[in-house]
Amino acid sequence: MNLLLLEPADFIAGDRVLLRDRRLTHMREVHRAEAGEHLKVGLVGGNIGSGQLLRLDATEAELQVSFDQPPPAKLPVTLLLALPRPKMLRRVLQTVAAMGVPKLVVLNSYRVEKSFWQTPFLEPSAIREQLILGLEQARDTVLPEVVIEKRFKPFVEDRLPQLAVGTCGLVGHPGDFPPCPRALSEPVILAIGPEGGWIPYEVDKLAAAGLQPVQLGDRILRVETAVAALLARLF
Amino acid sequence: MNLLLLEPADFIAGDRVLLRDRRLTHMREVHRAEAGEHLKVGLVGGNIGSGQLLRLDATEAELQVSFDQPPPAKLPVTLLLALPRPKMLRRVLQTVAAMGVPKLVVLNSYRVEKSFWQTPFLEPSAIREQLILGLEQARDTVLPEVVIEKRFKPFVEDRLPQLAVGTCGLVGHPGDFPPCPRALSEPVILAIGPEGGWIPYEVDKLAAAGLQPVQLGDRILRVETAVAALLARLF
Repeated sequence: MNLLLLEPADFIAGDRVLLRDRRLTHMREVHRAEAGEHLKVGLVGGNIGSGQLLRLDATEAELQVSFDQPPPAKLPVTLLLALPRPKMLRRVLQTVAAMGVPKLVVLNSYRVEKSFWQTPFLEPSAIREQLILGLEQARDTVLPEVVIEKRFKPFVEDRLPQLAVGTCGLVGHPGDFPPCPRALSEPVILAIGPEGGWIPYEVDKLAAAGLQPVQLGDRILRVETAVAALLARLF
Repeated sequence: MNLLLLEPADFIAGDRVLLRDRRLTHMREVHRAEAGEHLKVGLVGGNIGSGQLLRLDATEAELQVSFDQPPPAKLPVTLLLALPRPKMLRRVLQTVAAMGVPKLVVLNSYRVEKSFWQTPFLEPSAIREQLILGLEQARDTVLPEVVIEKRFKPFVEDRLPQLAVGTCGLVGHPGDFPPCPRALSEPVILAIGPEGGWIPYEVDKLAAAGLQPVQLGDRILRVETAVAALLARLF
């Protein structure tokens, strides 16, 4: 937690917050913060700034806060991700938020196990929890938009072509494809497949919607690693 | 597991292996393999190839194997990593092996908690276990060399300068530094700090040994994400 991320409900006055949850535990046990200290703070969806710890005990912490800087810029990217297995989903959500992806579409694919769609980690509150962890890590405040698309074909046929207009559309896919481009400044839509990859039908459908396959070498990476590697290379 | 990685002890004949451990469980439960199927196989430290599953039951699997292709090329990099917390260490070892790092130096730093050095995950067998998982993921066979350096100063003063000769030496460090370069073809030594970063003394010492600070933007990334992002950008 490199940023103490605050919600409207934390405020007891215009410049005072009272914390009683995992953020209190983290300040006490990991950060070992003491009264008087200044901590980096941010307002969810707003600016970042500084908070002075007025008091801290086993049950609550009170801080005086001010916000004077904008959060870091987001990447100009929309990420389409085949639903990963639940444990990986949680980490990928953190990575997506930490790296500055503003919009994530979680998509079905032939190789996504049907049971993955039953995970409680897809509940909005569970998604938000992981995104917040990623924002705290990277000192960002703006939650990515997350869209769930349980049906591949209607999304890719009916909605993706409009999303892809005016962007560089890419599908990360191992195989005999051009290498992933570097240092782009234009907006990108990037699709990353499930374990085992997209099936050819899906690659064709994504291509018809304007997304061209690119590869990142012979090595098959875990989804979380592939997300970090592709984004770092693209921007 | 995208590659069934075989050890000399698995062989019951020149082209036959018998498996009884987690690889058997994985073939049965995740891969749901059946007799007759062909699987990608590799020999630890050797070539990759194909294995035909001759029989498979609850206690053992027998395969006929042949090896005809070299493993994927490694990256021209030596990675210096401040010891991460134990849970992160395990994942980073997998990422390092999967991304093709041939040599990893795990190093002390002022901000590494002393207790981290007590973790059983630093035992050679535990390190090897995680590296194997990374190789299986990426379809590589060659174990990275892992060196443990519990004392920062003697390593950085006495051994690092020789390692850095003829390489591009870089320290990933947030701050007002040049951006991390892209698409290098020369050998690189890359140092990645602990949570909270290197302290200024350490950055100075690394610079004196030939490693210059570079940054990857305002966002503070988890070690595992930073490893993937920096390597993908550098090569």
